[in-house]
Amino acid sequence: GRRGAAPGGVSVSAVLPAGGSGERLGGATPKQFCAVQGRPLVSYAVRAMERISWISDIVVVVSPENIETMKTIIEKYGHKRVTVVEGGITRHRSIFNGLKVFAENGFSSHLLQKPEVVIIHDAVRPFVEEDIVSKVVMSAKEHGAAGAIRPLVSTVIASAADGCLDHSLERAKYRASEMPQAFLFDVIYEAYQQCTDYDLDYGTECLHLALKYCKTNAKLVEGTADLWKVTYKRDLYAAESIIKDNLSQQVCVITSVKETLAQVGFLLPESLKSQIKVEAISVSLSKNDSHLQNIISGQCYNFVCVNDKRCAIQETQELVDMLERSTIPLLYPVVLILVHLDISENNSFSIGMEDLTSIKKFARESKKKNILVYGLLIQYK
Amino acid sequence: GRRGAAPGGVSVSAVLPAGGSGERLGGATPKQFCAVQGRPLVSYAVRAMERISWISDIVVVVSPENIETMKTIIEKYGHKRVTVVEGGITRHRSIFNGLKVFAENGFSSHLLQKPEVVIIHDAVRPFVEEDIVSKVVMSAKEHGAAGAIRPLVSTVIASAADGCLDHSLERAKYRASEMPQAFLFDVIYEAYQQCTDYDLDYGTECLHLALKYCKTNAKLVEGTADLWKVTYKRDLYAAESIIKDNLSQQVCVITSVKETLAQVGFLLPESLKSQIKVEAISVSLSKNDSHLQNIISGQCYNFVCVNDKRCAIQETQELVDMLERSTIPLLYPVVLILVHLDISENNSFSIGMEDLTSIKKFARESKKKNILVYGLLIQYK
Repeated sequence: GRRGAAPGGVSVSAVLPAGGSGERLGGATPKQFCAVQGRPLVSYAVRAMERISWISDIVVVVSPENIETMKTIIEKYGHKRVTVVEGGITRHRSIFNGLKVFAENGFSSHLLQKPEVVIIHDAVRPFVEEDIVSKVVMSAKEHGAAGAIRPLVSTVIASAADGCLDHSLERAKYRASEMPQAFLFDVIYEAYQQCTDYDLDYGTECLHLALKYCKTNAKLVEGTADLWKVTYKRDLYAAESIIKDNLSQQVCVITSVKETLAQVGFLLPESLKSQIKVEAISVSLSKNDSHLQNIISGQCYNFVCVNDKRCAIQETQELVDMLERSTIPLLYPVVLILVHLDISENNSFSIGMEDLTSIKKFARESKKKNILVYGLLIQYK
Repeated sequence: GRRGAAPGGVSVSAVLPAGGSGERLGGATPKQFCAVQGRPLVSYAVRAMERISWISDIVVVVSPENIETMKTIIEKYGHKRVTVVEGGITRHRSIFNGLKVFAENGFSSHLLQKPEVVIIHDAVRPFVEEDIVSKVVMSAKEHGAAGAIRPLVSTVIASAADGCLDHSLERAKYRASEMPQAFLFDVIYEAYQQCTDYDLDYGTECLHLALKYCKTNAKLVEGTADLWKVTYKRDLYAAESIIKDNLSQQVCVITSVKETLAQVGFLLPESLKSQIKVEAISVSLSKNDSHLQNIISGQCYNFVCVNDKRCAIQETQELVDMLERSTIPLLYPVVLILVHLDISENNSFSIGMEDLTSIKKFARESKKKNILVYGLLIQYK
């Protein structure tokens, strides 16, 4: 992908600790490698970062025994801009290793360009959106550190030594610290260099290190509900259902820029709206349209192309190429419905045998790439 | 159901606040009335209490506009021992109303017998097991108050007035306060009578009230992961998947107490074991077996009955009756596979037309009750 402009013009990279053992999940596979809809969780988190064009490098930190697994995942799902780094025995040590790739020569095969701001995000939070990442990055640029927070779901209590209640916290005054977090690189790297072995072994909270060692009070940014962390098996179920829902509830209706056609094509999204999330755009498919590219990288897998040409395969081929070039690997079937809208006064069955054959051939070729092409002829008076 | 003995011989009842508005779910229906596998969440929570034979009364507190809905649910799913009470405008006021039914004449149509210990459990925590309820009740009997707790999933932080981090809490020292909780009735009722309007309007934590107004330090009991509260839409997805999983992965193989048959029947559970959770029991179905009753109330919906009789419909009828008498309403299809195992030396097709007709008739009748009966004849040498 091309690199877009970062918020505030800063250079930004990301570190994703993915070294956890997933004990709480109760399974043998660490949760970040558990498959959701056939694809490992970590791949969703990587993709979430990858979709954001202004993030330069994505460093994934995994435990030594999972380095090969991680490299296979990157290969299989076509992830770009990713560097795999060997983690330490705790979360903090893993994050520190991830940061070293930007600062210490010889730590990995090549030194990555040190970013002004570094994002830290968990491999087990698959649904982070560009909007919150952008907010956290801008706040980090201004305050030195920033992190997403959420309201507490349960009351938090402190227990006494005898296992009885000591006191409960007033829920409104506290928040759950979530991810993503972001830091001026120099702030968080300094904090990790200063901190004690006790911090590295028993701490988990990066915001705490920035405060303790760099006197940096992180800006807290209200996050959305989808930032939650996959911790238990039920969270994997939830992730699966959320993905399924997202896949089936979006459709992009593409009409040509021609005015007549766009007007007619307008009726379709209007009638679909009540049932499904619809993006309606008027573009010429032969141009590289950035709006369409954004829709594609926003995980839209269903397209209806309305045209009035006798056979619009060439234009449709452009869309298929765009899908292939996009950062979304074609993991789920993409559905492409070609609507040939015949609005001529003189209606007659206007697709010949030759056209049919080429459409069929095109559909057969596309199917290999997991793109299902359907054709529809509508005579409209 | 018959009343079993409570842990420690105390009298126990339960209050389920179900008055929440479900704002966080982002839907119009309050979460406790959202359907999971076609059945409202509150019905699962009620059933979880109902299954525990030593709980005398179950008071469900709902907001005025949902009283009829709740009564319909009780009727539809055949819930027993349930009293519906009108809630207040906050969680604490609703719980207080629930408690008044045991203490104040004229608050509901009839005064319920005041229990020694009262359980408070959320309508949106569908998967609570008898074991944890029993532990919490016993601890409440000893300490005056007790509640289930869970480790914190995220670090908890306090924010300063400027929206920046003030400090973060050391995760290991704090716990999330969950449900169920239990109290000596007199302790929690006293606490509610003493507490201020501010407590009733802005507080949420019952353990806090017991501490503040009755100097009772609740015993904290480590709970299981399934105690979690349905808060967001993703939690409904998770609940649905957990229920589906539970339904499909259990089968009970029932063999007659006859030794030969039990030996042969042993092979079936052995071969099923790797794929499904299997309970294998040898009972005479004509007796009221308490082990079998426990399996039924443990939500086992699949049964394989191995017998060597020519036609074991009478015995199977006992199982059907037991299912009907059980506290599990027959909401999901129960599958009953009758295996006629012919182990006689002189093998011959031994089921006549008459038998077949009566099996078919039995299957037809059972189907009306959502019990699907299948027959299988195996000749075994």
